[in-house]
Amino acid sequence: MAAAIALSERGRGRGAPNPNVGCILVRDGHVVGRGWTQPGGRPHAEAMALAEAGDAARGATCYTSLEPCAHVSPRGPACSDALITAGVARVVAALGDPDPRTDGKGFTRLADAGIAVTRGVGEDAARRAMAGFLTRQRHGRPFVTLKLATSLDGCIALASGESRWITGARARAHGHVERTRHEAILVGRATHDADAPRLDVRLAGLEHRAPRRLLLTRAAAPTGWEAVRGPEAIGALAGVDHLLVEGGAQTAAAFLRAGLVDRLLLYRAPILLGGRPALGDLGLDRLDAAHGRWRLHDSRMLGSDRLEVYERA
Amino acid sequence: MAAAIALSERGRGRGAPNPNVGCILVRDGHVVGRGWTQPGGRPHAEAMALAEAGDAARGATCYTSLEPCAHVSPRGPACSDALITAGVARVVAALGDPDPRTDGKGFTRLADAGIAVTRGVGEDAARRAMAGFLTRQRHGRPFVTLKLATSLDGCIALASGESRWITGARARAHGHVERTRHEAILVGRATHDADAPRLDVRLAGLEHRAPRRLLLTRAAAPTGWEAVRGPEAIGALAGVDHLLVEGGAQTAAAFLRAGLVDRLLLYRAPILLGGRPALGDLGLDRLDAAHGRWRLHDSRMLGSDRLEVYERA
Repeated sequence: MAAAIALSERGRGRGAPNPNVGCILVRDGHVVGRGWTQPGGRPHAEAMALAEAGDAARGATCYTSLEPCAHVSPRGPACSDALITAGVARVVAALGDPDPRTDGKGFTRLADAGIAVTRGVGEDAARRAMAGFLTRQRHGRPFVTLKLATSLDGCIALASGESRWITGARARAHGHVERTRHEAILVGRATHDADAPRLDVRLAGLEHRAPRRLLLTRAAAPTGWEAVRGPEAIGALAGVDHLLVEGGAQTAAAFLRAGLVDRLLLYRAPILLGGRPALGDLGLDRLDAAHGRWRLHDSRMLGSDRLEVYERA
Repeated sequence: MAAAIALSERGRGRGAPNPNVGCILVRDGHVVGRGWTQPGGRPHAEAMALAEAGDAARGATCYTSLEPCAHVSPRGPACSDALITAGVARVVAALGDPDPRTDGKGFTRLADAGIAVTRGVGEDAARRAMAGFLTRQRHGRPFVTLKLATSLDGCIALASGESRWITGARARAHGHVERTRHEAILVGRATHDADAPRLDVRLAGLEHRAPRRLLLTRAAAPTGWEAVRGPEAIGALAGVDHLLVEGGAQTAAAFLRAGLVDRLLLYRAPILLGGRPALGDLGLDRLDAAHGRWRLHDSRMLGSDRLEVYERA
């Protein structure tokens, strides 16, 4: 299942509104097919794995991060039907599909066809890998990651506004990989006007993976940008299940105040600046209220910078 | 040597102007004596270890974090003479003593008496353990640690000034242990007036180890406090070889601007505040100038807070 979930990550940020699923077919201890949701959402992971396996799918076990779909679409058959037709013997899934068109019907159809079904394997990891789809299904909005690159004292720029560079090359490259995992990046008007950020992906071979560029503004967006009128408007962004908010301080604070940040990506350089703070006013009136909201998920060094990833508690 | 250096830590913050030395006497594979500089600076570590060893010191190896002193004082004989008299066979020292009254004379006297002398063992660790004494000898001022307890976004309080508590119980207890390792703690006038900090040691059995309380002010100090007129005045603080600066933002910035911070103690809680920044203006006009000044020495979790210790690069 871990391998299937790892495959699912390949489709993250590229398949909305479809879930980024990962799938592995195993027969006699050998992997005979691998699949993940393709850009645009089709083919589905199971279809890709079945195509790779061909006749070898017969009698195989299918490990998939999400319940195989039960709904036929003009773009392809239901994956549960395809698995039955291929003669798969067993299906192991991490999560049920909350999409009302499937929501248990996939499992039922498989079981009715005599296929052994196991669910709940690797549930936590799968939830994390498909956070965009699940957040869209549950809350009707994208999964939001707030990225901050700060000094040890939490500054994102000198008082003069100079902000290049706080973190080193490895941390910045990591930030570019993160961009490829999102359908869209958003910055605030002040950051746009001051820094004219390209928000592209400057990694060899991944240049084409630059997400859509969103600007938090009540005015019209410049060419190449889309305007978002406020944090609460992100639910209406079609095709965006993963949103990366890259600043600045007022924009970050607006998303935090609205309770619309699911994940923090903190890059911190071993420097002191005494400059501009990372966040505007969060509207906290008591310190107690700040506690218990974030849980450390990952911490690692990127050169001399530290990356910490926090998730909503 | 590591054991001798560990013992030396027991005297840190309690023996200025004497160095906090640690010493172990080993004979036939057994520790026969242990010593560390006692409160007030006497007895010296070697004298304590020799007293514990008694006749067992004859033929023993002495591991000491600093060159045994060569100068007789009204408060006791020179340690090099005492080691010779006790019949020690070998002396292993981490560092030479920069005090001009010894500075190599201790080693020479031992060697002249037929004692094998090895030096330079565990040098880095010993430098760190005796940083107060060495900084006083070299720069004529205390070794300065700046402590900051911040949120993830580098704040030390809400906009309202509320700052209790940002870090959890374990981090705060660690901060109190750090207090016992300093002869004095300094805060700025604004912090004093706003928070009325006690700066005591709230740890069972260590209550008596509260350091002297210093106030950065040009006015007279209140009862129980000593006034320090500016960061550059710390050299004149008799009996202070380790100074802990606990804030606030303007005081921390003043010490950093003056280049008078040797070590950073950063406690960081997993919360976001969007409040008051940890540091005032550092006078940096270029971001480049902020880099390369600090080197991570230690990083650990204290409950859900992270402690990072940085040293001047």
